[in-house]
Amino acid sequence: MKHDSPVRITMVGGGSWATALIKILSENNVSIKWWMRSKTDANHIKTFHHNKSYLSDVQINPRKVKVCTRVRDAFRESEYVILAVPAAFVSDALAGLDTRDFTGKCIISAIKGMIPEKNQLVTDWVADQFGVPNSRMAVIAGPCHAEEVALEKQSYLTIGSTDLECAAEVARLLTCRFVQASPLADIYGIEYSAVMKNIIALASGITRGIGYGDNFQAVLVSNAMQEIKRFVDAVYPQHRDLSASAYLGDLLVTAYSPFSRNRTFGTLIGRGYTIQSAQAEMNMIAEGYYAVKSIHAINRQHNVDMPITDAVYNILYERASPVAEMKILQGKLT
Amino acid sequence: MKHDSPVRITMVGGGSWATALIKILSENNVSIKWWMRSKTDANHIKTFHHNKSYLSDVQINPRKVKVCTRVRDAFRESEYVILAVPAAFVSDALAGLDTRDFTGKCIISAIKGMIPEKNQLVTDWVADQFGVPNSRMAVIAGPCHAEEVALEKQSYLTIGSTDLECAAEVARLLTCRFVQASPLADIYGIEYSAVMKNIIALASGITRGIGYGDNFQAVLVSNAMQEIKRFVDAVYPQHRDLSASAYLGDLLVTAYSPFSRNRTFGTLIGRGYTIQSAQAEMNMIAEGYYAVKSIHAINRQHNVDMPITDAVYNILYERASPVAEMKILQGKLT
Repeated sequence: MKHDSPVRITMVGGGSWATALIKILSENNVSIKWWMRSKTDANHIKTFHHNKSYLSDVQINPRKVKVCTRVRDAFRESEYVILAVPAAFVSDALAGLDTRDFTGKCIISAIKGMIPEKNQLVTDWVADQFGVPNSRMAVIAGPCHAEEVALEKQSYLTIGSTDLECAAEVARLLTCRFVQASPLADIYGIEYSAVMKNIIALASGITRGIGYGDNFQAVLVSNAMQEIKRFVDAVYPQHRDLSASAYLGDLLVTAYSPFSRNRTFGTLIGRGYTIQSAQAEMNMIAEGYYAVKSIHAINRQHNVDMPITDAVYNILYERASPVAEMKILQGKLT
Repeated sequence: MKHDSPVRITMVGGGSWATALIKILSENNVSIKWWMRSKTDANHIKTFHHNKSYLSDVQINPRKVKVCTRVRDAFRESEYVILAVPAAFVSDALAGLDTRDFTGKCIISAIKGMIPEKNQLVTDWVADQFGVPNSRMAVIAGPCHAEEVALEKQSYLTIGSTDLECAAEVARLLTCRFVQASPLADIYGIEYSAVMKNIIALASGITRGIGYGDNFQAVLVSNAMQEIKRFVDAVYPQHRDLSASAYLGDLLVTAYSPFSRNRTFGTLIGRGYTIQSAQAEMNMIAEGYYAVKSIHAINRQHNVDMPITDAVYNILYERASPVAEMKILQGKLT
């Protein structure tokens, strides 16, 4: 009988969030095909049953998880596909696939970012490219550091979909001993809010780097919640309680985490590093760097009042002085 | 002309928040009578122009600030009275005063707590005791660590009053180079939310002490915002945006601060200290300890769903095991 046979899932991506999701899913009755680009990493997992590059303490159960490096193989026969690569690489990861590969599957984005050149949400892009209907798309939202999932610290996920039944299905797959997943009838609000939180983390870092304190940070985050609400309500109006974990919680875990890459990048900028030297120092590019460009561009059509996003945009793309720009922002917050 | 003569203000209380407020007010054209109980502290300030016990780096301007130890003297001729003693001591501090001492003055509470035996907000108690009309009462809300005010770090205050013009008057007095104060037409919501944030900080500390991580903390704080909204909307219904700095910001600066007394007290409880030994270790009692008893009692009439408050109450007053109680709470959060 179907409910006794394992649920067939494809995981796309070999990073830490993908590894954490594999750990959660493996607590349930699943059969996962795990695609990653790196043959070396894939072979290591096949042999040693852990991902040497990310969350290497997590044991990978070989009876439940088969690793593969050809994405079409990974898609074959699965009911659910989880996308967990950086937004900038998703197009590359799915290259060669077509509409038929997606037919009948539920497509779940665990990506917090936008398709860079297109200023498009990942779910919108997947719908466009592969003809997936809205009712078979979902997103996975935090607040959830992968590192704490690895340690089995109690965590919560929110599964957003325009189709609440689809969200509930996915939430059941992702609920286990140490994770409680809840469905929510929103997808665009959750995705935009996940993208915007990285911009706020940048702003938080920049102001830290300049020397603003905890009082200012608390006001910045409060104003950020209002800015996110104004934006998502303008772009996709629907009733939303932004104090739900998927929105506020996700922002908090990022803006208050000293481990956030976006916050660290912002701190360097606030201290006076150039963008190039901050990127070189971190050996990577923070997602918020792209996110602010996309959100700023989208807002040209909506004209929402977004003082925090504007300040970060001006600093990163218009060569504005962080000190001067944050001084202007300071006067706009309440 | 009146607007050229200094605004006459009474400050009640000699602690760190009173000292920080004195520093802010002294940036403007004011004449302050500063009451404190300790004659030693008062004499020290008169001689050395700083408060040796709290924020001792703050210079007290003797041309603007006169220290006194008789509360009736401090009240004489002032237009504004700011109450900045712990809630448990306010009745003592104002002993001997009567309705006439309060006539015509605007009374501003900077106290974050409730009158312990009476389960009453400070402004309600002042109105009852001294016949001050609602339109001449205001509250000062954070997010604002006194220590950062001392360092002149950019901070924000919200002044709440049922009378928006009264709030605006007080906001003008408290706006200076490094502080921006804004008026808001709410007083009870702000006061309750300031009291409840200490309960949430206790909960945050207890879960930290047990071993819960950042993911859980972000979910706890998100659920706390919903709990605070449910409660204040039930007790004093009016339109409120709880993501404003006075509510969300104030909660964040407390719940995320490792210096919060309530959070520290909670952490000790979570680690298995008894209430007595935690109090002995800290050499003081955290306000949240009283707050949770008051809010729990008030909620008997309202029956609002308050899982976080209930959990803290059960741990502190019903000898419930922190681990067991937080395990139950864990299942109620989303």
